[in-house]
Amino acid sequence: MPKDMNKNYEIYERRESEARSYCRGFPTSFASASGSELTDDKGNTYIDFLAGCSSLNYGHNDPDMKQALIDHISNDGIAHGLDLHTDTKGDFLTTFEEKILEPRGMDHKVMFTGPTGANAVEAAMKIARKVTGRTNIIAFTNGFHGVTMGALAATGNGYHRGGAAGAALTGVTRMPFDRYMGEDCDTTKFLEAVLKDASSGVDAPAAILLETVQGEGGLNAARTEWVQKVAKLAKEHGALLIVDDIQAGCGRTGTFFSFEKMDIQPDIVTMAKSVSGFGLPLGLVLVRPEHDVMGPAEHNGTFRGNTHAFVTARVAIEKFWADDSFEKELAEKEEILTEALADLAEIVDGGKLKGRGLMRGVDVGSGELASKICGRAFEKGLIIETSGPDDEVVKVLAPLTTPKETFRKGLNIVLDAARDVTTNNTIAAE
Amino acid sequence: MPKDMNKNYEIYERRESEARSYCRGFPTSFASASGSELTDDKGNTYIDFLAGCSSLNYGHNDPDMKQALIDHISNDGIAHGLDLHTDTKGDFLTTFEEKILEPRGMDHKVMFTGPTGANAVEAAMKIARKVTGRTNIIAFTNGFHGVTMGALAATGNGYHRGGAAGAALTGVTRMPFDRYMGEDCDTTKFLEAVLKDASSGVDAPAAILLETVQGEGGLNAARTEWVQKVAKLAKEHGALLIVDDIQAGCGRTGTFFSFEKMDIQPDIVTMAKSVSGFGLPLGLVLVRPEHDVMGPAEHNGTFRGNTHAFVTARVAIEKFWADDSFEKELAEKEEILTEALADLAEIVDGGKLKGRGLMRGVDVGSGELASKICGRAFEKGLIIETSGPDDEVVKVLAPLTTPKETFRKGLNIVLDAARDVTTNNTIAAE
Amino acid sequence: MPKDMNKNYEIYERRESEARSYCRGFPTSFASASGSELTDDKGNTYIDFLAGCSSLNYGHNDPDMKQALIDHISNDGIAHGLDLHTDTKGDFLTTFEEKILEPRGMDHKVMFTGPTGANAVEAAMKIARKVTGRTNIIAFTNGFHGVTMGALAATGNGYHRGGAAGAALTGVTRMPFDRYMGEDCDTTKFLEAVLKDASSGVDAPAAILLETVQGEGGLNAARTEWVQKVAKLAKEHGALLIVDDIQAGCGRTGTFFSFEKMDIQPDIVTMAKSVSGFGLPLGLVLVRPEHDVMGPAEHNGTFRGNTHAFVTARVAIEKFWADDSFEKELAEKEEILTEALADLAEIVDGGKLKGRGLMRGVDVGSGELASKICGRAFEKGLIIETSGPDDEVVKVLAPLTTPKETFRKGLNIVLDAARDVTTNNTIAAE
Amino acid sequence: MPKDMNKNYEIYERRESEARSYCRGFPTSFASASGSELTDDKGNTYIDFLAGCSSLNYGHNDPDMKQALIDHISNDGIAHGLDLHTDTKGDFLTTFEEKILEPRGMDHKVMFTGPTGANAVEAAMKIARKVTGRTNIIAFTNGFHGVTMGALAATGNGYHRGGAAGAALTGVTRMPFDRYMGEDCDTTKFLEAVLKDASSGVDAPAAILLETVQGEGGLNAARTEWVQKVAKLAKEHGALLIVDDIQAGCGRTGTFFSFEKMDIQPDIVTMAKSVSGFGLPLGLVLVRPEHDVMGPAEHNGTFRGNTHAFVTARVAIEKFWADDSFEKELAEKEEILTEALADLAEIVDGGKLKGRGLMRGVDVGSGELASKICGRAFEKGLIIETSGPDDEVVKVLAPLTTPKETFRKGLNIVLDAARDVTTNNTIAAE
Repeated sequence: MPKDMNKNYEIYERRESEARSYCRGFPTSFASASGSELTDDKGNTYIDFLAGCSSLNYGHNDPDMKQALIDHISNDGIAHGLDLHTDTKGDFLTTFEEKILEPRGMDHKVMFTGPTGANAVEAAMKIARKVTGRTNIIAFTNGFHGVTMGALAATGNGYHRGGAAGAALTGVTRMPFDRYMGEDCDTTKFLEAVLKDASSGVDAPAAILLETVQGEGGLNAARTEWVQKVAKLAKEHGALLIVDDIQAGCGRTGTFFSFEKMDIQPDIVTMAKSVSGFGLPLGLVLVRPEHDVMGPAEHNGTFRGNTHAFVTARVAIEKFWADDSFEKELAEKEEILTEALADLAEIVDGGKLKGRGLMRGVDVGSGELASKICGRAFEKGLIIETSGPDDEVVKVLAPLTTPKETFRKGLNIVLDAARDVTTNNTIAAE
Repeated sequence: MPKDMNKNYEIYERRESEARSYCRGFPTSFASASGSELTDDKGNTYIDFLAGCSSLNYGHNDPDMKQALIDHISNDGIAHGLDLHTDTKGDFLTTFEEKILEPRGMDHKVMFTGPTGANAVEAAMKIARKVTGRTNIIAFTNGFHGVTMGALAATGNGYHRGGAAGAALTGVTRMPFDRYMGEDCDTTKFLEAVLKDASSGVDAPAAILLETVQGEGGLNAARTEWVQKVAKLAKEHGALLIVDDIQAGCGRTGTFFSFEKMDIQPDIVTMAKSVSGFGLPLGLVLVRPEHDVMGPAEHNGTFRGNTHAFVTARVAIEKFWADDSFEKELAEKEEILTEALADLAEIVDGGKLKGRGLMRGVDVGSGELASKICGRAFEKGLIIETSGPDDEVVKVLAPLTTPKETFRKGLNIVLDAARDVTTNNTIAAE
Repeated sequence: MPKDMNKNYEIYERRESEARSYCRGFPTSFASASGSELTDDKGNTYIDFLAGCSSLNYGHNDPDMKQALIDHISNDGIAHGLDLHTDTKGDFLTTFEEKILEPRGMDHKVMFTGPTGANAVEAAMKIARKVTGRTNIIAFTNGFHGVTMGALAATGNGYHRGGAAGAALTGVTRMPFDRYMGEDCDTTKFLEAVLKDASSGVDAPAAILLETVQGEGGLNAARTEWVQKVAKLAKEHGALLIVDDIQAGCGRTGTFFSFEKMDIQPDIVTMAKSVSGFGLPLGLVLVRPEHDVMGPAEHNGTFRGNTHAFVTARVAIEKFWADDSFEKELAEKEEILTEALADLAEIVDGGKLKGRGLMRGVDVGSGELASKICGRAFEKGLIIETSGPDDEVVKVLAPLTTPKETFRKGLNIVLDAARDVTTNNTIAAE
Repeated sequence: MPKDMNKNYEIYERRESEARSYCRGFPTSFASASGSELTDDKGNTYIDFLAGCSSLNYGHNDPDMKQALIDHISNDGIAHGLDLHTDTKGDFLTTFEEKILEPRGMDHKVMFTGPTGANAVEAAMKIARKVTGRTNIIAFTNGFHGVTMGALAATGNGYHRGGAAGAALTGVTRMPFDRYMGEDCDTTKFLEAVLKDASSGVDAPAAILLETVQGEGGLNAARTEWVQKVAKLAKEHGALLIVDDIQAGCGRTGTFFSFEKMDIQPDIVTMAKSVSGFGLPLGLVLVRPEHDVMGPAEHNGTFRGNTHAFVTARVAIEKFWADDSFEKELAEKEEILTEALADLAEIVDGGKLKGRGLMRGVDVGSGELASKICGRAFEKGLIIETSGPDDEVVKVLAPLTTPKETFRKGLNIVLDAARDVTTNNTIAAE
C-alpha cells in the first residue's frame, strides 16, 4: 500500500502541532523497521543511529520480542490492566528480579509509574521528598529529566525551561556537573561546601539527582570518583541518591545499569526508554524497600505499567541479560565506536570526544556544523542526531545489537559526511 | 501455562512498590481478557465495569484492532518512531481529521505528548501560559488532572496533593464546580466576580481547565448552561478554555467528545485513556491553530505518540465513529444504566444518582458502604470501583461495547451486592 | 525658613522615584502639622481626612506624646536598641498589658517585628505555618496586607500584585469576603465546603487571615456573624485565625481592636499604623502564648521595636484607653460621620455607604468621580483620598481626635466638593 | 526614676515573644545612651561595639542630630507624611544629592520604601524583575538580605530560612561568594559558566544581588576584582547589579558606600540601618533613572520615608560627609582595629581575620568560643556580638565616631576576655 508522500506531508502541515520536531530533520515517512534499519515509504532504507533516543537499544522489531508480543495479543493477553496483578506483570517482575536485581545485589522494589521517563522522575522526586520531609532536590548543570513541571525544574535546558512560560519551577538547586569547570576542578567541593554550611542558602536536600552520562546535555560522562563522592555526600547529609538511568541504562554504557561498575548503590533509579526492549512506553522507579513510602495510588496514572511492554521487557532481559555474553559484545563495539569517533574528532577542527560506552559522540564545536554533518549523513542513508547545550555534539546512539558490519558502515557514513561538510565549508569559505 | 497464585503474590509483596493499588481490591491474577470480560489464572471470569478507568471503552482486545495490530507487528511496522513521520501516524491523523474533527467543525491541530493523560494536561497548561503570557490557571473543586507536579496543582484530591510532600503546587486558583454549593447556587457568579474585579486577588487567568463530568471527583456532571457560562467568561477575560476529556471523552458520555452537544468550542482539549481504543498508552492535545505555539520539541518526550496505539486508534475511529450508529447504541445503553442505578439509589438509603451518559454511578453516602458493595460484587464476578472525595460513589465505567445482556447481568450483580451488603449491615447491627 | 516651592519640586522630579504617589494628588510641600491640620510651606492649612492612612488616629503632634518624646530625646533615652531590654520598652509593654490586653481578657504575647505592617503580616504568616506545619493561608478578595512577597501573596489588589513582575506569589488561597456575592449570599458556605472536602483542592490551611473592615479594598465591613462563622471554621479545621488590625485597629472602628464586640479571640493580631500614636514606624504581632513559636531572632529585623515609638505609644494608651471616655467620644463622632455620608450618598447618583465606625466612606460609582471629588476638596482645603478596587470609594479617615467642629467643617467640604463636581459634570455633559 | 529590674524581667517573660534575642545575651535593661556608651538602669555603663548592628555608625544621640530632631518636634514638624512632599524630605533629598550622589557621579533616584532593610531589598528585587521581565535573582552563599519572604529567598542562613516553615522560597539561584571555595578558586568562573550556558539550568537572571562585605554571613569581604568581575557579568548578561549596602554602607567600610573604590556603578543600591544617622527606621533604594520603573505606589507602605529620620539623616550627611575629614579619621581607626584583631587572632588558636574597613572581626573557630568571649566581654563592660554560619566570628561594629581612647579600651576588653576564656578553657581541660 504505497503512500503519496505529499499527501502525508499535507496532513502533518494541516493537523500536527508545530511541536513536532525530529520529522523536520528527516523529511520522509517511515513505513517499517527491522534491527538497525528503517525503511521509508519509497523503499529507501536508513541505518538508525538514533534508535529512538536510546529507546531501541535492541533494535527494531527484535524477532523474539515480536513473536512473544504477537502470541500475547493473539491469545487475548491483557493489553491494559491498570495496576491489577496480571500473569504478564508477575512474569516480568520475576525475571527482572532474577536476572537484573539479584545478581547485582539490589533489594530495590519496582514502582510502575506512568509510561514516560518524566513520570518516573516525578515519582522519584516525590518519594525522596516524602521520605526526608525536605523539598529541595539537587540537580546538575546540563541535566535532562523531562519536561513536566516537576521534572522540568530539574532539567537544565533553557529552551525546555522556557516552555514553562514563566510558571515557577521550584524545589531544585543547581550544582555543577563533573568537569563543568574543566578537567582539574573537583566540582563536588562546591556541593560539599554548601551541604556542610548551614548558612549556604542551599536548603538540606531531599535528594541528589544525576545522570552518570548526560545524554541530552552533551554526552557528559561523570567520572567514577565524582559519582562516588556525590553518593557519599548524599549519604552523609541525609539525602537520597537518585540515578536517572533513563537514557544511559539498559546496556547503553556497556552494562545494564550505567553505575554498575562504580561501587555505589542508588536509593532510587529511574528507568524508561529501552526498558521495554521493543520501544513500547514503560517507565519505572526502583526504590530501596525502606524508601518505598508512596501509599496505594498516591502517585498514580491510568497507564502505569503497560502490559504489552511487560511481555517484550521480559524477553529482552532473558535474551540479553541472562549471562555476560551481551556485555562482552558491547565492549567490542565500544572499541569500534571509539576508534571511529577519534577519526571524526580529527576531521573536524578541535573535535572533542564525549561520552562513555556506546553512548558517545564528538563535540564538533558548533551546532551549525553538527547539524550539517547530520543532514549530510541522512542524504547518505544514516539517521543520526545532535545533543548538547548548543546541539554541538554529533551523537551516536546506535542499537546495541547493530551488527558490526552495519555499525562500521554507519560510522563510515558519519566520517564521510563530516569530510564532505568540512570540505564544502572550506570551499564555501574560499 | 497455569500459575501458582501464591508464587505470584510473593513476587508482588517482595518486589512491587506499595504504591500498587487496584490489585488490593481485586486479589487475583488476570491472564486474559476479551470484550467486557476478564479471566484470571484460575479460569474465573469477571465482568469488567472498571474498563481501565475508561481506557477500554471498546472493551478488551477488540478483534478488528487486534488483527490490525498483529498485522502491523508481523509486517515489521514501526513500534517506536519518536515524532518522525510514519505511515501509521499519517493514517491516524487522516482518519482523526475526517471522522472526528471535520464533522464537528473543529480546526484543532493535534499535539502528541508523552502517552499519559497527565502529560497532555501539562502540555495544555504550558500552551495556555505561553499563549497568554499569564501563569494562573483556574481549576475546579474535585477536579482530577493527573499527579505530575504541574497537573497536580490543578488536581483537587488531597491524598494525591499530599504526595507532593510539601513541594509547592503553584499557578492554579481553585473555583467551585457546578452544583458545589447546591443545586440553586450558580457558582459561575463567583468566577465572574473575581475575573471582573481587579482587586480580587485572583490573577488574570491563562486558562480555565475543566472536566464536563468529573470522573475521579465523584461523577459530578456540569450542566450545559454552566459550561457555556464558563466558556463565555473565559473568552471575555482572555483565558483559554481547556476541556480535559481524558476520562469523559471517546464516547463515554454518549458522544465522542463530552462537550459536543454544549455548543462550545474549547481552545484546547486533552485526551488519553480510550483514545488508542485498545488500552495502549496515548496522550494528545487538540489545540486551535492560533494557539499552536509550542516550538519544535519545546514540550517533548521519548514516547510522544505511540505507533502501536496509532494503529488501534485508527481502527477504533473507523469502526465506531464513521456514522452515528454507535451513538444510538450508547443512548439505549444509557437508559438501561439509568434505570438500574435508580434501583440502586433506592436500595441504599438516600442514594443519589451521579454522572452523565455511560459515566454514571450512585453516591451511597459513605466510602465504607461503597467499598463493601464493590467487594461483594467482586465475589459475585464483577469488577467495579468507587470514586468521589470519600470514595462514596459506586461508579459504572463499563466498556461501551458491552452487550446488553452482559450489561444487565453486571448491573444485577451490583444490585444484588448492594442488597446483600445493606441487609448484612442491618443484621450486623442487630 | 520659607522654601521656594519650585526648587522643592525640582528635587523630587530629579531625585525621587516615580513610585511616589500621594504627593501627586496633593501638589504642595507640607511644613508642619498639629492635631487635624497640616500647614504647607506657603502657610495654607488643610484639614486632614487622610491621617496617614489611619496612622495618625490621635492627630499630628499630640502635645502629650510630643512632650514625652522631647523629654526622652533630651535625656539621651535610647533611640535604637535592637531588641535589647530598655526601660522604655518595659514601660510600653507594662502599659499595653494593663490597659489593653488584660481588660480585654487577652493572654497574647507581643512580638516586635520590623516596623511596618507588611513585616507584621509576614511574621504572622510564618508563625501560623510553623505552628501548624501547613503552608496554605486563606485570604480574602479585596484584602490588603502589604507588598513584600509573603504579604503580597495575600493582598488582592492586582496593581500591587503586578509589582511582583511574574515572580510566584504562593501559599495563599483566595476566598470571597463577606457580601462579595451580594447581601444575601453567605460566602462562608464556600469556605466551609472546601475545608470539609478532602478533594476540594484547597489544602488544609495554616491560617485564615482577614481584616474585619477592608480599608484599602473599599471599606468593606464584615458582619459580626460572618467573622464569627469564619473564626469557628478556623478553629474546627485546625487553622489559626489572624486578624489584620493594622488599619482598622487603634480605635478606628470605635473600639481599640476592631473585633472587640464580636466575641471572638483571634490567635494572632497584626498591628502597625496608629499603634505608636504619633505616626512613628512600629509594627507588632500579638500571638497567643501557645502559638509563640518563633525562636530567638528566627524572624528578625534591625529596627524591630522602635524605641521612640514605644515612648509615644505608651502615652497614647494612657491618654486614650485608660477608661471608656474616648470610646464614647468616638460613638458620637460616628453619628456625625454617618449622617454626613448619608448626604454624600444622596448627592452622587447611587452612592453607597461603606465601612464601619470612623472608617467609612461612600462608593460613588466610579474612580473618576471619586478622584474629582477629592481633587475639588483639596482646592477647598481638605485632604481626603479614595479606596476600593477602582478607587471608587471616597474614604474618610479623619484623626479620631478631630474636634467636632473641625470634623463637621471637613465633612461639609466633602459635600460641597461632591456638589460642585456633580453639577459640573452635568454642565459638562450638556 | 530607677526601675526594679526584676519587675521589668517579668514583663518580658510574661508578654514579649520568645522571638526576642539580643536581650538574652545582655541581661540588663538599658536606660540611656550617648556616643559609644550605653547605661543601664543600675547605672552601669557599657562600651557599645554592636552599635545597633551597624545602625548607629555615628553613635547614640549625636548632639547635632538630637538638637535638630528636638527642634523639628518642638516646631510641630511633620512626624508622619506618607509620601507627601514635606520640606523635611526635600531638604534631605537635596543634601543627599549634593553631598552623596553628585560627588560620586551617581545619577540614581531615591525610592523610599518601608523603613526596614528587608523592605528595601524586596523593592529592589521587584524593580529588577520588572525591568528585565525575568524572575531569577542570583544571590550568594552566606548572604543576608532580610527575612520577609521575598528577601528571605535570597538570604542564606538556614535558621532564618527555616522560619518560612516549608513555604516556598522561590526565584533565587545561589552562587558561591568570593573565597567560598578557598583563596585560590575564582568562583566567578562558575557564575560565568552558568550564565553563558543556555542549558545550565540557571535561568537568565533579572539581577545579581550581593553585599561587598557579608556582615551577618561572617564578615566575608569580597575582593575588588571579584566584585568587578560579577558586575561585568551582570552587564554582559542583561542582569541588574544590586549592591545591598544596608550593613556595609554609611561609612562602615571607610567610605560612604562600600563599593566606592571598586570602580563599579551598581544599578540599584539598598540602604537602611545607619542611613538615618540616629538609629531611626529608614530604608531606601537607589536606582538608576532608566530602571526607575515602579509606578506610583506600586511598591508602597504606610511608613515609606520616615520624616523624623529625614531630619537626622540630613544632619548626619552634612556633619560627616561634607568633606573627606571623616574618611581620614576612619582610616586611622581601621589601623587601630586591624592591629588589635591581629592580636586577638593570635590569642585564639588559629584565629582568622575577617572583614574590611571598620567592619571586621576574627573567626575564632567555633561559635562556642566566640560566645564565651562575648559573654566575658559583657562582664567587663563591653557589648559585642558574633556572626557567621556558626556564630564563630567575634565581630566589631563599633560606632565609627568612637573616640580612639574608648575604641582602644573596648578592644582591650575583647583581648582580655579572649585571654580569660582561652586560659579558662585550658584550665577546665586539665
